Amino acid sequence: MDNFEFYSPTCFVFGKDTENQTGKYIKRFNGSKVLIHYGGGSVVRSGLLDRVKKSLDLEGIAYVELGGVQPNPRSGLVYEGIELCKKEDVDFVLAVGGGSSIDSAKAIAAGVVYEGDFWDFYKGKRIEEALSVGTVLTIAAAGSEGSPDSVITKEEGMIKRGASGDAIRPKFSILNPSLTTTLPAYQSACGITDIMAHLYERYLTNTEEVEVTDRLIEALLLTMKHEGPRVIEDPNNYEARANIMWAGTMAHNNSCGVGRSQDWNSHNIEHELSALYDCAHGAGLAVTMPAVFTYVLNHNIMRFAKVAVRVWGCQMDFEHPEVTAKEGIEAFRNYLISIGMPRNFAELGAKEEDIPKLVEILCRGDGREGSISGFVTLNEDDCTKIYKMMI
Amino acid sequence: MDNFEFYSPTCFVFGKDTENQTGKYIKRFNGSKVLIHYGGGSVVRSGLLDRVKKSLDLEGIAYVELGGVQPNPRSGLVYEGIELCKKEDVDFVLAVGGGSSIDSAKAIAAGVVYEGDFWDFYKGKRIEEALSVGTVLTIAAAGSEGSPDSVITKEEGMIKRGASGDAIRPKFSILNPSLTTTLPAYQSACGITDIMAHLYERYLTNTEEVEVTDRLIEALLLTMKHEGPRVIEDPNNYEARANIMWAGTMAHNNSCGVGRSQDWNSHNIEHELSALYDCAHGAGLAVTMPAVFTYVLNHNIMRFAKVAVRVWGCQMDFEHPEVTAKEGIEAFRNYLISIGMPRNFAELGAKEEDIPKLVEILCRGDGREGSISGFVTLNEDDCTKIYKMMI
Repeated sequence: MDNFEFYSPTCFVFGKDTENQTGKYIKRFNGSKVLIHYGGGSVVRSGLLDRVKKSLDLEGIAYVELGGVQPNPRSGLVYEGIELCKKEDVDFVLAVGGGSSIDSAKAIAAGVVYEGDFWDFYKGKRIEEALSVGTVLTIAAAGSEGSPDSVITKEEGMIKRGASGDAIRPKFSILNPSLTTTLPAYQSACGITDIMAHLYERYLTNTEEVEVTDRLIEALLLTMKHEGPRVIEDPNNYEARANIMWAGTMAHNNSCGVGRSQDWNSHNIEHELSALYDCAHGAGLAVTMPAVFTYVLNHNIMRFAKVAVRVWGCQMDFEHPEVTAKEGIEAFRNYLISIGMPRNFAELGAKEEDIPKLVEILCRGDGREGSISGFVTLNEDDCTKIYKMMI
Repeated sequence: MDNFEFYSPTCFVFGKDTENQTGKYIKRFNGSKVLIHYGGGSVVRSGLLDRVKKSLDLEGIAYVELGGVQPNPRSGLVYEGIELCKKEDVDFVLAVGGGSSIDSAKAIAAGVVYEGDFWDFYKGKRIEEALSVGTVLTIAAAGSEGSPDSVITKEEGMIKRGASGDAIRPKFSILNPSLTTTLPAYQSACGITDIMAHLYERYLTNTEEVEVTDRLIEALLLTMKHEGPRVIEDPNNYEARANIMWAGTMAHNNSCGVGRSQDWNSHNIEHELSALYDCAHGAGLAVTMPAVFTYVLNHNIMRFAKVAVRVWGCQMDFEHPEVTAKEGIEAFRNYLISIGMPRNFAELGAKEEDIPKLVEILCRGDGREGSISGFVTLNEDDCTKIYKMMI
């Protein structure tokens, strides 16, 4: 196991009606002037935004609002948020929504206290300082409610990149599974896929003998395998929603990923798809992961055989472990299709003729020099082949 | 799933040579005058205490020392530590050792800022305020390095009780698996047993449909099943030690225990044994758990069958699930014996004739009124029968 520091000081407030405590938690974490940051209509229509505001009013906490976060959140709104916070002396950024709203809130929080262009962080500069962030989560997916990460798309060139730093870990996150029962099945399935991707990206390690984190990842994958179809079948199944929500948070707060190298190339390869076509990140991952896994399979057949047996219930073929390894990938692919995810470029709305452009941005965009590193280092040729497998 | 708040802001610093960073972390968490609290000879002999002091010296941090913590730490030394901290204006308590040193340090940290008798907390009063605590861990066992809990024995009547409160969660914990390689096999096995008890106590729940935490607990039990015999066979196996150490911390920081009722009656029943006979807590648990589990089996046969199948690899007997459930308890018992744990009162040094006294303290001691509650509420008659099963 590699040396590591694990510091996850987010206070998770989980369960029914917990959004009514938002104001109390902002107070506990010393917020006095808040930017409430959210996306579009659903948090307004559902009455959630009003309930959150009421809880702030009850504590006498002042706030300003900035809505309009899009899926695959854009740098333009981040700049707008930074200006607003400076003008209004905001000291706490509250995201109400999913990963997009949270990631946008984190970018604003980091940008407000930074003299340069906030995009520097998305070109690789570590975030060391930020306003406090809190979240009220409305979809189990990105894990951003418990992570030090944020992903933003720069409009110029549609480049999608991530930034990181403990300073943007939320001080608290309100997790009410009931808020996710109104999600369309497709969005729920995208969230499920994203959570499972966070687990697979950690599972694909080059560190040996990390049984404890292997087992924890498998535990969360098994949970998703069991609970995913239950929420697709019955969106109002609170218990299934609750199990998925905690699994999603634990999948990405890194308690199951410490002390081991991780992959993140499926995420990297997908990011160009959702940046260019504005498809859902989870849907893009559903098409990307089976292709990437198949491409890198030979790098460590036993690792893929392990997840096939332990998670997907495949029988180990001791004479031909690669058969088992492939069965596991196929089982995962079939699972994703069964919950309604796309299987190829066509179903995703992506185009074969864009592949050179995708590879160019992926391998040569901000801060990259011809390849992406992870479980296996992939160069432009590798990435071209992988995108072609997705057609 | 039940509503819950999960807040685990301990910074875990894991890996080789990390004890040399102790001073740096005390500084990060605002300590300026430290009480270094430890047990007996091993941390002195091994040179660990000197390395820790050197790291404080390098940061210019002043300290006083209080050694002499015994296994099953006593209230007498806690009072002494409280007086010393007051006299010396200590603002940070650093435990160097195992669960006993850490629990004693937590009691001191809470007692210093409390006007009444610190034992009030061990009679049920919640700890709301305390000096900051940090730890350098030398045995994977109690999980106290990441928990809000402390267990102390009051000399008068030899009553062993626990106290709790987020204020005594360590600010940081240094976890270097190398420090555990010099432990005698028996102590290692006691630690393994304690960790598995923390998992079983959470597994035995009356909350339904908590798949995510069931799976996380099973993941950690499977890790212990795999790694335990590896450290007994080869004490210098760093990787096995590392897997156990992280499993031990995750087993007890409650990330796998949230949103569900828990048991803790095996701990309660054992505490009277280690209080009276001064046996190792883990050894006491090894004798206690199989008896308790067998006694409460019929309360939820399927729960015991589940752990039998998923962790111990038993075949499910679909016509007679109680057979599978019992096989799981037997497999666990055999595992404990295989790593060198005692199997009964005689091997533990406990005496049948003391049972009435044990039951009296257990069910009528400080704050109890004739029974202990958990997975199943157990009255004096139940507890008598359970102790008798352990003869």
